[in-house]
Amino acid sequence: MDGAAEQSKSALKKAEKQAKLAAEKAAKAAKKASFPVVGGKKTDDIIGITVSKEENFSAWYQEVVLKADMVEYYQEISGFFVLRPLAMHIWSEIRKWFTGHIEEMGVDEVSFPLFLSSKSLEKEKDHVEGFAPELAWVTKAGDKDLEVPVAIRPTSEAVMYPYYSKWIRSHRDLPLRLNQWNSVVRWEAKQTTPFLRTREFLWQEGHTAHLTEDLAGKEVLEILELYAGVYEQLLALPVVRGRKTENEKFAGGYYTTTVEGYIPTNGRGIQGGTSHCLGQNFSKIFDITVEDPSNKGSHIHVWQNSWGLSTRVIGVMVMVHGDNKGLVLPPRVAKVQTILVPVGINKSTTPEDRKKHEDQVAEIRATLKKAGVRAEADWREGYTPAWKFNDWELKGVPLRLEFGPKDAAKEVVSYARRDTGEKGTIPIADVGTKVPELLENVQKDMYNKAEASFREHRLKVNKWEDVLPALDDKNVVLIPFCLDGKCEDRMKELTTRVDDQPDVPENQKPPSMGMKSLCIPFDQPTGDELVAGETACLNPECKGKAQKWVMFGRSY
Amino acid sequence: MDGAAEQSKSALKKAEKQAKLAAEKAAKAAKKASFPVVGGKKTDDIIGITVSKEENFSAWYQEVVLKADMVEYYQEISGFFVLRPLAMHIWSEIRKWFTGHIEEMGVDEVSFPLFLSSKSLEKEKDHVEGFAPELAWVTKAGDKDLEVPVAIRPTSEAVMYPYYSKWIRSHRDLPLRLNQWNSVVRWEAKQTTPFLRTREFLWQEGHTAHLTEDLAGKEVLEILELYAGVYEQLLALPVVRGRKTENEKFAGGYYTTTVEGYIPTNGRGIQGGTSHCLGQNFSKIFDITVEDPSNKGSHIHVWQNSWGLSTRVIGVMVMVHGDNKGLVLPPRVAKVQTILVPVGINKSTTPEDRKKHEDQVAEIRATLKKAGVRAEADWREGYTPAWKFNDWELKGVPLRLEFGPKDAAKEVVSYARRDTGEKGTIPIADVGTKVPELLENVQKDMYNKAEASFREHRLKVNKWEDVLPALDDKNVVLIPFCLDGKCEDRMKELTTRVDDQPDVPENQKPPSMGMKSLCIPFDQPTGDELVAGETACLNPECKGKAQKWVMFGRSY
Repeated sequence: MDGAAEQSKSALKKAEKQAKLAAEKAAKAAKKASFPVVGGKKTDDIIGITVSKEENFSAWYQEVVLKADMVEYYQEISGFFVLRPLAMHIWSEIRKWFTGHIEEMGVDEVSFPLFLSSKSLEKEKDHVEGFAPELAWVTKAGDKDLEVPVAIRPTSEAVMYPYYSKWIRSHRDLPLRLNQWNSVVRWEAKQTTPFLRTREFLWQEGHTAHLTEDLAGKEVLEILELYAGVYEQLLALPVVRGRKTENEKFAGGYYTTTVEGYIPTNGRGIQGGTSHCLGQNFSKIFDITVEDPSNKGSHIHVWQNSWGLSTRVIGVMVMVHGDNKGLVLPPRVAKVQTILVPVGINKSTTPEDRKKHEDQVAEIRATLKKAGVRAEADWREGYTPAWKFNDWELKGVPLRLEFGPKDAAKEVVSYARRDTGEKGTIPIADVGTKVPELLENVQKDMYNKAEASFREHRLKVNKWEDVLPALDDKNVVLIPFCLDGKCEDRMKELTTRVDDQPDVPENQKPPSMGMKSLCIPFDQPTGDELVAGETACLNPECKGKAQKWVMFGRSY
Repeated sequence: MDGAAEQSKSALKKAEKQAKLAAEKAAKAAKKASFPVVGGKKTDDIIGITVSKEENFSAWYQEVVLKADMVEYYQEISGFFVLRPLAMHIWSEIRKWFTGHIEEMGVDEVSFPLFLSSKSLEKEKDHVEGFAPELAWVTKAGDKDLEVPVAIRPTSEAVMYPYYSKWIRSHRDLPLRLNQWNSVVRWEAKQTTPFLRTREFLWQEGHTAHLTEDLAGKEVLEILELYAGVYEQLLALPVVRGRKTENEKFAGGYYTTTVEGYIPTNGRGIQGGTSHCLGQNFSKIFDITVEDPSNKGSHIHVWQNSWGLSTRVIGVMVMVHGDNKGLVLPPRVAKVQTILVPVGINKSTTPEDRKKHEDQVAEIRATLKKAGVRAEADWREGYTPAWKFNDWELKGVPLRLEFGPKDAAKEVVSYARRDTGEKGTIPIADVGTKVPELLENVQKDMYNKAEASFREHRLKVNKWEDVLPALDDKNVVLIPFCLDGKCEDRMKELTTRVDDQPDVPENQKPPSMGMKSLCIPFDQPTGDELVAGETACLNPECKGKAQKWVMFGRSY
């Protein structure tokens, strides 16, 4: 990294830190205010999100995840977070969905130990080198020093592959397909952010072994399609499927495929999940061989894959769908899909009417439950309906139903969609069918909105001078690229702005961050094909010919 | 502990170590032999379990869990184990079942960090004291020393409760019911055994807070009933529900309830899962209070529970159901419930007949799958049917189906039950109904057999001199007991044998281990009621009066 990049990076860090402090301060104030002490006294001291998404995205994000009760900062040790029920529900839904699919593929679940010995670390130095500065070392048990310190896994290749060598004795033992759901620890020195970069995170890591490159390659793409499904089908987020360039692939692997997301607010790309073919690199290190079934007596090294998806997905979901009222949840992963808020009951309501109203609300909720909707009723005392509306909007519940005597008289429930704010009524008799329909519409519309935004901001650029304006306009760009790693580095430098106004607040300046390659999309643009050996690489300093349209962007 | 006990304990340890070595040696030899290199050549070099369950229980156990592919010793760091798919499937089934039930109760899932700061450890010294010698300490990240070392959680009270204090601000926030599925680390100095005592293990830990003792107490029992359900309904194992004595309760808690199991082979009791009421002990330490809703202005400390169930359950299952052919799995948790082994095909079979046979087997398997049975077909080449039978018996598959041309001619499939060895035939047309029925019968019969064995070996003993013979006869005993902790300690001493034959091999001597209290069963014996203030405590040296019938035994 050159000086300019370094400088801009440190400014960025500073700005992020400031944003975080602001968010924490705001969150503290909000917490005090938004949970008023209500000794029977009603209150409308509503304070939701205090920073707008457009104004200070980073502060907005940290407020949302805190105030929507998704996470809690772990005060005791920095860089760690508590995942609260709302967030864990999303992860559990993803886990269920993904597990169902990989079980069908024949992937088995395992659990390997938390620790790595320094011995096995030495075995695969190249791969481990990248993780070394982030390894957490256990050196003591009780008050005794361990004879040999052990590291907490940052990923499990070195933990698992010695056993692959042991278990795979014949081509009949292939494919071996194992997956585990666990947490890994990477003691980041960089600024941490909930879900996006944390010192411990939850993920699944799949590790498989195959007889041939073809069989391994087929699985790489099957898994990638499941990762795309997590985004598209569950989280209502569009992704672009593609392959990483050599610069960006998994160190030690053969090739890396990826699903890439897009954050409209700042126009940055974000890596969504990666499915790697490791080739024979690890099987050579760990001596994982079988007798070649078509050539007795000769041995071949197996072909391996690894693939992982982490709780980072939740952060992407928050950043794309959230708004200035707070979180917006896609129905399929929302813990509470529909919140029923009783309204129109006050001091002059007779006990009989109150009882009748309660029964009606309970009945509507029962109908919804029966229809498979995760529905709750908010009977909290001491809060006005308006306060409750805000509270559930903050928490992103996709659909609010209101029900009061006026609705009862018309035999309807009133609804409000979280994503669009659209309001309307549903006949009580139709609640069991219309609410699931509405939720499906919310899910689709959220996806379509995000998809349109990504599509519109994925610009095909043919002239170098259009690149920076396109990035500043919150686009990612598709450019003809020679695929050379040095050329890629150079384009990053060329698009990095030197920070010549150190006194202007960071969020009032154009971003200084240079672009990097996000992926080589599998779907190459049509109608403007590259001509092999003729179309030039877009980098004006590059003499190479373009091999592919490659997606570049500022990124996380 | 007195000298005799200490001495006998060390002898026991020695014996266990010897057993482990023997098992490892046998396992190594078996591994070599049971997976013959089969270059197209058929082989019947079948070696299953080499030690009998009765002869050397400890060695038998370790052979079974290794050879059935449940676990692998983690060679890199002692005391750790890899849980392989067969074992993880059992844990996943338990997780699914238990999660379904606690979700209905309103328990939410969370994920708290892996680490504890030394600061929060200091806060609850009494509770932590017991864990201190087993804490794994991270002191370095990368090559830098941490400013303050952090410990890996041995359990999460100290990690979680500071947040309970933060989140619970009003009685409206109660009950707070959170559960997490994770692994914890306790760096045991004692000899480790797969599932039963390991330095890292998987478990769930539930931590809840309630307004009153009654509400907390109600949940304690609901959870205990679910733990009993895991044993009885999933693992086909009987348990006795009860309360722990003061000596045996969770340190720092108010009272502990437990489900207790029984291992027929050695007559030992084993703790199955515990559901604790912590009372207000932790809420006082962590300052978790709410305003008393019935007495404004005054604050009360919340009532807390914690409850945990670990992968130890799998070990109990192996020890009770397994036999000298290997593992025996209850159908409800078996990854493969039914294995289809094609038979009667040889070199003289025509290609057409072979194809027809394959199609028929595939069809039977499809029918079973459709009926919800986890069925696989064993098409491995190079192994005889007899070798396959042994292999699947070793791995505990509840039901084997054999199908060959002779069966086809009679339009039946042949079956063999793993639990009883019973053989018979099922008309092909009935496979979809009869196999699920058979599997349910296996499940019931396995439970009934284990239940009868536990019932017959739970002896009510009224005379002190009958205690030791009853224990030697592989019973646990129900005795009238004063509930005094010192009396309990003394009875343990009185039943501990001094090892006066140090040269006789351990497994040829009666066990020296003293008895301890397993639980105070909720179901007290009828027909022989204790008379309050009259019935004496069974301990001949005790002057106290019996309060309860209490279950004592040698135990894990």
